[in-house]
Amino acid sequence: MTDQSASPVQDESALPGKGDEAPRRPWRAYFEAELGFRNHWYPAFFSRQLAEGECRGQVILGERILFKRIDGKVYAIEDRCLHRGVPLSVRPECYTKNTISCWYHGFTYDLRDGNLVAIITDPESPLIGRNKLKSYPVEEHKNLVFIFIGDAAPHPIALDLQPGFLDDGLAIYPSGEHEIVKSNWRLAAENGVDASHIYIHRNSALINAARRPLPLSTYFLTREGMVVEQDGAPKGVVKGVGRRTAVWETEIEGVKIASQYRPGVNTDQRNVTDTSLWLPCGLKVDPFPRPGTIQYEWYVPQDEQSHHYIVTWGQRVEDEQQCEQFFREMDVIWKELVVHKFNNEDVIAREAMEHFYADEDGWNQEQLYRPDVVIAEWRRLASKHNRGIQRRPAARGKTSA
Amino acid sequence: MTDQSASPVQDESALPGKGDEAPRRPWRAYFEAELGFRNHWYPAFFSRQLAEGECRGQVILGERILFKRIDGKVYAIEDRCLHRGVPLSVRPECYTKNTISCWYHGFTYDLRDGNLVAIITDPESPLIGRNKLKSYPVEEHKNLVFIFIGDAAPHPIALDLQPGFLDDGLAIYPSGEHEIVKSNWRLAAENGVDASHIYIHRNSALINAARRPLPLSTYFLTREGMVVEQDGAPKGVVKGVGRRTAVWETEIEGVKIASQYRPGVNTDQRNVTDTSLWLPCGLKVDPFPRPGTIQYEWYVPQDEQSHHYIVTWGQRVEDEQQCEQFFREMDVIWKELVVHKFNNEDVIAREAMEHFYADEDGWNQEQLYRPDVVIAEWRRLASKHNRGIQRRPAARGKTSA
Amino acid sequence: MTDQSASPVQDESALPGKGDEAPRRPWRAYFEAELGFRNHWYPAFFSRQLAEGECRGQVILGERILFKRIDGKVYAIEDRCLHRGVPLSVRPECYTKNTISCWYHGFTYDLRDGNLVAIITDPESPLIGRNKLKSYPVEEHKNLVFIFIGDAAPHPIALDLQPGFLDDGLAIYPSGEHEIVKSNWRLAAENGVDASHIYIHRNSALINAARRPLPLSTYFLTREGMVVEQDGAPKGVVKGVGRRTAVWETEIEGVKIASQYRPGVNTDQRNVTDTSLWLPCGLKVDPFPRPGTIQYEWYVPQDEQSHHYIVTWGQRVEDEQQCEQFFREMDVIWKELVVHKFNNEDVIAREAMEHFYADEDGWNQEQLYRPDVVIAEWRRLASKHNRGIQRRPAARGKTSA
Repeated sequence: MTDQSASPVQDESALPGKGDEAPRRPWRAYFEAELGFRNHWYPAFFSRQLAEGECRGQVILGERILFKRIDGKVYAIEDRCLHRGVPLSVRPECYTKNTISCWYHGFTYDLRDGNLVAIITDPESPLIGRNKLKSYPVEEHKNLVFIFIGDAAPHPIALDLQPGFLDDGLAIYPSGEHEIVKSNWRLAAENGVDASHIYIHRNSALINAARRPLPLSTYFLTREGMVVEQDGAPKGVVKGVGRRTAVWETEIEGVKIASQYRPGVNTDQRNVTDTSLWLPCGLKVDPFPRPGTIQYEWYVPQDEQSHHYIVTWGQRVEDEQQCEQFFREMDVIWKELVVHKFNNEDVIAREAMEHFYADEDGWNQEQLYRPDVVIAEWRRLASKHNRGIQRRPAARGKTSA
Repeated sequence: MTDQSASPVQDESALPGKGDEAPRRPWRAYFEAELGFRNHWYPAFFSRQLAEGECRGQVILGERILFKRIDGKVYAIEDRCLHRGVPLSVRPECYTKNTISCWYHGFTYDLRDGNLVAIITDPESPLIGRNKLKSYPVEEHKNLVFIFIGDAAPHPIALDLQPGFLDDGLAIYPSGEHEIVKSNWRLAAENGVDASHIYIHRNSALINAARRPLPLSTYFLTREGMVVEQDGAPKGVVKGVGRRTAVWETEIEGVKIASQYRPGVNTDQRNVTDTSLWLPCGLKVDPFPRPGTIQYEWYVPQDEQSHHYIVTWGQRVEDEQQCEQFFREMDVIWKELVVHKFNNEDVIAREAMEHFYADEDGWNQEQLYRPDVVIAEWRRLASKHNRGIQRRPAARGKTSA
Repeated sequence: MTDQSASPVQDESALPGKGDEAPRRPWRAYFEAELGFRNHWYPAFFSRQLAEGECRGQVILGERILFKRIDGKVYAIEDRCLHRGVPLSVRPECYTKNTISCWYHGFTYDLRDGNLVAIITDPESPLIGRNKLKSYPVEEHKNLVFIFIGDAAPHPIALDLQPGFLDDGLAIYPSGEHEIVKSNWRLAAENGVDASHIYIHRNSALINAARRPLPLSTYFLTREGMVVEQDGAPKGVVKGVGRRTAVWETEIEGVKIASQYRPGVNTDQRNVTDTSLWLPCGLKVDPFPRPGTIQYEWYVPQDEQSHHYIVTWGQRVEDEQQCEQFFREMDVIWKELVVHKFNNEDVIAREAMEHFYADEDGWNQEQLYRPDVVIAEWRRLASKHNRGIQRRPAARGKTSA
């Protein structure tokens, strides 16, 4: 039984198959982007994770980065002393508000531009004022700190965010989840937008607690409107609820397999969510986990084998009181349920794919199927609209003598 | 003092030495068989390790394999979903007796042939019935489950078993040892048939408990009969007790080194065992650990650095009562003694060789000696009669775009 | 404020900078010496670490070595049986004083020359007397055991020791520190002689306990006398106290940074040490940690990623009573303070550099500065006067068939 007549416009002939090289070519850039895409904005962490005057080291897209909050504003520079390459964050030492001094020899950098402004152990060094660490553009919005990784002049951050994220009146929960997951970031992004992976959540406690109707699967009947790639706006893929086919039951060898909670059957709640994935790596699930609340996720590459998994929620509020109530409800009810009784299944899936893709040529051995059209479109979009492939820092430097 | 006059037909000139390339060539296939030999039968586990209706994932020769027992019969298919490569065994889910459904998107496979028979999340997918996972021939004999790894049509399993193993009237103990040992499988096989390695067991508690006569070493005076390679029968090397030279004592710098227990000296028991090694990787020690009982071992490659070490025992029995008594005696007395007070020494030796062979070019740096003739013959036999070299699965697929 | 007018003869133009290949060439040998320099003497361990009749296995410059003390004298041979490459030290077994027998097949070696003198499992093997393990020259001086790693005829050990170390009347503390540190040996050596790294010790408990004057930094005004490279004597670099510039205070953004304890300010003690670094890898700090005591350190390569860190102290004594008092004072007061309240900072620094140099092309990406002239001179000296680059043992053997 499906919601609509089974007439998908896509069949697997539109998806590259095993042994079929040519159609994969549009995805080449994506296949090379083990470390993510360069010249984009990424969320680094929640605002609450960095108090005034504090420092924080984090690896993003393989780059070691040091953050400090000064007079409320967050700055970021390379977390690698020019001199002998030690991380400043091993023992952050700030003699003044605007600077950090390397704990090893006192090379002192201005957090605001990365300039080498003093060397405690050689105060008159000619290097002072003539050298600098890489400095990163940082912006803070909606209780999250974002960083621009790349060499190009940064474009407006709104182009790299889920549409509507910066809207006035949208409150973003400040205490979301930030954890490291051991899989390549692309497997996470694809799992996020994956039309049919909701199957994995069929036994989630969140679903059972809410008696929430959840089909066995969904996929989408047409690509129209699936790809959003207008100039001057975020680029992404949108599954589009209106075009959805939902599978509520099927059978195997005569044994019936059915959704546990179905609309009009054992629940009267109808709750259909729309999911979209945006360059460079942000997901939007609207609404989730309850009407009126939007879930946001990011899969920020840490290195080739792991990513920062950042999750939070947004809701339109009219005043401070509504905002507080929203935050309280997330604190008390939803955060725990979503993170540990729902998203944990996704984490298992991403980590279970890693070996195949990392060690068994999975990118060429996989067999996509009809519901994966949205994944295929995402790969095509990402290959076309990314602003650069990230490479290992060492490989960007000179080769050895 | 030796049992026979010291007139070995072999001296080291018959063994390839360091810096001596040409004679090694007959072993080339063996040197390449890091992952074992393809197109052979291997024991996977004991029957008792898989109950009716249960699933079990195991890596053999680098291939991920899922086993399920259905109506008593064991089936095996690739443990890697066609779609995104996750192991089915992470969360085995069987809606019906004959199938397993991937926990991620519900790709459903018939265990009997690997066919993709349903996709829960896309019930009308054109992939159904047109794709399949690799399916492996499986046979169960004597309380062990065997699998054929390869592409060729499987030959009779008796050709890959120690002679006599399938004999009627031979009871095989169902609760033997199955553990992972961290060395390449070849080091284990060679240690098993190694004529002189009994030296390592001189202080084993098993030997002391039994006051069992154990020479310091044995080797063999002639190659005649050592190599068994008739057509249509198992291929192996047999040390042959009749031709044995046993070293019971020797001296170093005038200090006498002697066996602790010697026939006719401090024990009246004479217990001489015959050891043989059979393609692909099975050992037979007859009798051991006591008269009338045969010890069987297998060293089944898991990956390049580890193997499944499977050990059990057989005894000819006339009726059910004898069989039960044999099993009980193994349970109560011998299993613990052999595994933890004797074979544990072999495990230490295999693991101690691994670094040399894996990282220090050991296959070319080793210095074999006269008692190793049987090892040299084993390598020659294995290089000649194996049915294929196993390669990494990824390397068998297409290379990346 | 500096001790002397700021007129350093060196500025960074004399140091190779990023993107500046040619001047690095004199360092090429040093850059290749990941595993250290061959054909040199190295301390292996303290005499007290090997009692009469005991065996000890240790990896030095990537070579596996077995030591045994016989009649007071220490001998060293390869810790790798000729036969199948197992380490003899896994289960050292000595039937006689002068030999060790491999626990696996009884290959028996004379510790004094490495000769294969017996094979327990094949007493009449033609290999006996015709094969040998590599044997290493060993000398014991001043409560330390030294080994010569290489193929050349060993030169006098005094050429590879800090000058004066072998002097009569110099007592060396027998219970110094010997630990494994996880960084390449060169990072340790450079940290040891690093003129300005004393900054890292500014908060060391040792400094606070002694109210010891410690400048923020020192560097050296002239290279004259810095490089010691006369024929027939140890080769090294000497910082030279007389030429020292000391930085006692500086400022960052108007904030004053000053030494905690300064001569004539809050302490009346003036304690200036001279530091020097000698081929192959020995440091001398004179005096330290108190007047009259000299600190000796060695950074002996274990493998590419780790080194043996060996530390002890020397003092001139007139008689046995003075010697005992010196040892007692080290036991009770200084060893703990220096190792855990001072040198521990150096260990942190060495390990913090490892990632940059091992994985991020640090040898070419680093930016040296004026106080590093002594490091630059050390690299030049080491590249010029080393007696060979150590390579992985496997690479010295034949390549595989």
